Amino acid sequence: MSEKSLHASSGPGSQLNGDDGLMRLGPAASEMTPLAFLDRATRIFAERTAVIDGERGLTYAELDGEVRRLAAALVELGLRPGDRVAVLAPNTALMLAAHYAVPLAGGVLLALNTRLNAGEVQWIVGHAGAALLIHDEALGDLAAGAAVRTVAEPELRALAAGLDPLARTPLDDLGLLALNYTSGTTGRPKGVMYQHRGAYLQAMAMAYHARLRPGSVYLWTLPMFHCNGWCFPWAVTAAGATHVCLPQVDPVAIWQQLERHRVTHFNAAPTVLSMLAWHEQAGAWTPEWPIEVGTGGAPPSPALLERMEELGFVIRHLYGLTETYGPIVVNDWQPEWDELSIAGRARLIARQGNSNILAGQLRLAGAAELGEVQVRGNNVMLGYYEDAAATAEAFTEDGWFRTGDLGVMDDDGYVELRDRAKNVIISGGENIASIEVEHAIASHPAVLEAAVVARPDPHWGEVPVAFVELKPDGKVTDEELIDHVRDRIARFKAPKRVIFGQLPRTATGKVQKFELREST
Amino acid sequence: MSEKSLHASSGPGSQLNGDDGLMRLGPAASEMTPLAFLDRATRIFAERTAVIDGERGLTYAELDGEVRRLAAALVELGLRPGDRVAVLAPNTALMLAAHYAVPLAGGVLLALNTRLNAGEVQWIVGHAGAALLIHDEALGDLAAGAAVRTVAEPELRALAAGLDPLARTPLDDLGLLALNYTSGTTGRPKGVMYQHRGAYLQAMAMAYHARLRPGSVYLWTLPMFHCNGWCFPWAVTAAGATHVCLPQVDPVAIWQQLERHRVTHFNAAPTVLSMLAWHEQAGAWTPEWPIEVGTGGAPPSPALLERMEELGFVIRHLYGLTETYGPIVVNDWQPEWDELSIAGRARLIARQGNSNILAGQLRLAGAAELGEVQVRGNNVMLGYYEDAAATAEAFTEDGWFRTGDLGVMDDDGYVELRDRAKNVIISGGENIASIEVEHAIASHPAVLEAAVVARPDPHWGEVPVAFVELKPDGKVTDEELIDHVRDRIARFKAPKRVIFGQLPRTATGKVQKFELREST
Repeated sequence: MSEKSLHASSGPGSQLNGDDGLMRLGPAASEMTPLAFLDRATRIFAERTAVIDGERGLTYAELDGEVRRLAAALVELGLRPGDRVAVLAPNTALMLAAHYAVPLAGGVLLALNTRLNAGEVQWIVGHAGAALLIHDEALGDLAAGAAVRTVAEPELRALAAGLDPLARTPLDDLGLLALNYTSGTTGRPKGVMYQHRGAYLQAMAMAYHARLRPGSVYLWTLPMFHCNGWCFPWAVTAAGATHVCLPQVDPVAIWQQLERHRVTHFNAAPTVLSMLAWHEQAGAWTPEWPIEVGTGGAPPSPALLERMEELGFVIRHLYGLTETYGPIVVNDWQPEWDELSIAGRARLIARQGNSNILAGQLRLAGAAELGEVQVRGNNVMLGYYEDAAATAEAFTEDGWFRTGDLGVMDDDGYVELRDRAKNVIISGGENIASIEVEHAIASHPAVLEAAVVARPDPHWGEVPVAFVELKPDGKVTDEELIDHVRDRIARFKAPKRVIFGQLPRTATGKVQKFELREST
Repeated sequence: MSEKSLHASSGPGSQLNGDDGLMRLGPAASEMTPLAFLDRATRIFAERTAVIDGERGLTYAELDGEVRRLAAALVELGLRPGDRVAVLAPNTALMLAAHYAVPLAGGVLLALNTRLNAGEVQWIVGHAGAALLIHDEALGDLAAGAAVRTVAEPELRALAAGLDPLARTPLDDLGLLALNYTSGTTGRPKGVMYQHRGAYLQAMAMAYHARLRPGSVYLWTLPMFHCNGWCFPWAVTAAGATHVCLPQVDPVAIWQQLERHRVTHFNAAPTVLSMLAWHEQAGAWTPEWPIEVGTGGAPPSPALLERMEELGFVIRHLYGLTETYGPIVVNDWQPEWDELSIAGRARLIARQGNSNILAGQLRLAGAAELGEVQVRGNNVMLGYYEDAAATAEAFTEDGWFRTGDLGVMDDDGYVELRDRAKNVIISGGENIASIEVEHAIASHPAVLEAAVVARPDPHWGEVPVAFVELKPDGKVTDEELIDHVRDRIARFKAPKRVIFGQLPRTATGKVQKFELREST
């Protein structure tokens, strides 16, 4: 080592990384907003097909024009910066355009679940203090009750048609982009606050993990009103790929669209995949190109993953919540898994994974083995709108978001969820993870899907009860199913009762366990 | 439209997107720093191979340990927050580790070009005010002259071995991450300032465009001291892929490593590709897997692109400068190009493209057809270190970075560079783009590479003169070459003189035209 002093020349640079906390941006720094993705796509992919909605197709140049005229119409209607704009529409070109037009006009997007009832719409619109409600023509009745100015799509389009496109003006990329009210299985819905920057980063992470390219064709099976479609309205555009609208989730329509538009990507909850995988049309046609499917929202069973792979789909398991802009966790495929059997791969993919490429850290908090999954990252919400108490409760004191989901971590760092904290069944002092029982039931060939909940029991405290939906031609008795489970997992985990029938679901396909608990 | 007032309920939300300019981060927001990529890779890909350096291989868990112990050693040596740490090393595991260890210890990385002479090293180390210089053992002589404390790799490693790994502490992600001194064909080198956030975003964009995955194997043909290797030291890690070190750019070694390590990706200037493409070993072995090659730094000729594709490589054309963290522009592949002939594709890929997925806007400024390429984005430098005048000159008043390169834009939005502003030859009042002449010369089968510069001429003002390097077995006369050019482009653009011989190059393979101009 030479003897020259380490700090002989520390003068000029000390200003650069000082402790003053000063923010420093370069002269050419640009805003981290999803709007930048449409700017880019319009510049580079102007003549590529941006969106297909029924028989209508728009290039990126046309989508950009439409977005800017819709934004001009919002301004014409009196929209002021920061105003919330509610949108009530299925997965149509309007809903997609609103993901750009509302923020372009300076507004905050409030996409509403089309399966809400009028009272719920009223409550959310009121809580969000929306200034305007835009709706699909068919949803006029649902919109009518809200205490807000409502505009049907044809009126909005008529107004927009006569206006000059609105140009983009500078915006605060740390400001609010969207509110997403959680479906809230209990209590009032909470308005999750999304920021421009967070959505920009999450959209980028999704484009990376889904491998979206200019030639990709994305089918809109996932509702855009759900977590803003996991940020795919922006991710697909970032890649210059094509959006294919799908107003209703219907297995026949999905199978048709996959073939007709040579779809390469879609996302769906496992319950939608179940519908597809065991539909009578399944297997009648095998795609000649890889179709990449992102699934999450509930843990898919290994049996479902195996079946999907047999049908020729490439499954990517994702995990997240409305509070995390959709999938903050991904199951990143590792090349060694190629060597495994389909069943072996399915077991590994059934795990949720770990942070996506732009997410922050992930930890299991609490018990040594089974802990609550807690996450950090710029793709975690700013908080719940006008609900400081709920926001405070959602984060730990040191700034980790509490998912409320319990998981274990494998040696390779991949997390597998065991259950929602509230879904754990405590029987005779032993914890039973309802998911484990559900997967054991779902491995029976007659079963389409299963949900297991706790029933209070004077002797055991709680016992597991299974609600089971069978495949169209599936036949099995409750005794046979209970034996099937006992052959696979600890006997005390087997359901004490099996109830057959259709499972109650939310709009996004989540089984509503609170309803099931009431009918045990 | 209903008659309810648009602003009946605009109260509670107006605080959210106000004009106060207040920065708002969520409780779980995380730092946008490339260090986060190593954290993630270590968490999820702990047992995957992170780096291969000769016979030595490190997993991500091992690389992480090494980085943290090296960081501890830097602190032990007295490093203070914001201190610049110069590193003088070829593409070794040390150089890679320094890309993490220096910022982890709170320092600013100053990677030095190993082909500089001792005087240049002294000048840069002095200008940057470096507190420490770490060097590869073989480069002790080059390091010795610098007025700074120097530490050879073995000493540093011996010190690190006895220390506990350093934990990561909070950092300012808008602060300085690295300085990169431009090779500066004229005048003193300038120290380009990179920020944590800019490098984070650029690394993400590179991982996306290069399609890096956990199974990717990246060969380090591009020097890490050049624009921090286009941010690939961080991008490859972000994907959980494997770095393969290559201390010297040698065509035989490259062909060997490609096969031995089943390399999937590398980046190189066109001049390196020329060496590979027409090397005697070329074609002796054809990879059974796709090898994706990013090329940039100078425009590759269509002839070269055609040849590389024939050899089985997938070429991605990129464009950028040290000031833009490497490639701010990419030629995004469009699926319709699959239908074209190899030659047709080569012509389209020979264009530079447009903004990468996370870059800001791009424009051509100046003349209607041929204009200067100007860019914006978070992957544009903060400025030149301690050089306010040069910084001011590099940006327009409205914050666009002036690349100094002239280009045209095709109808599809893809930009093709015609020349550096200073390389345009003005002959008889007509502009001649030297690149156009170079590509015409390079299309002759005997030519390896060509460089065309202006020679002052009493009659024409300037005339083009060509310097030509032939392939090992290439034979052609000056007259034949001039005829070859005249058959392809306007006669007045043909060189007035042809000089055969090896072209003088910078360490990164750029032809040094200022040297050629002196010998016309």
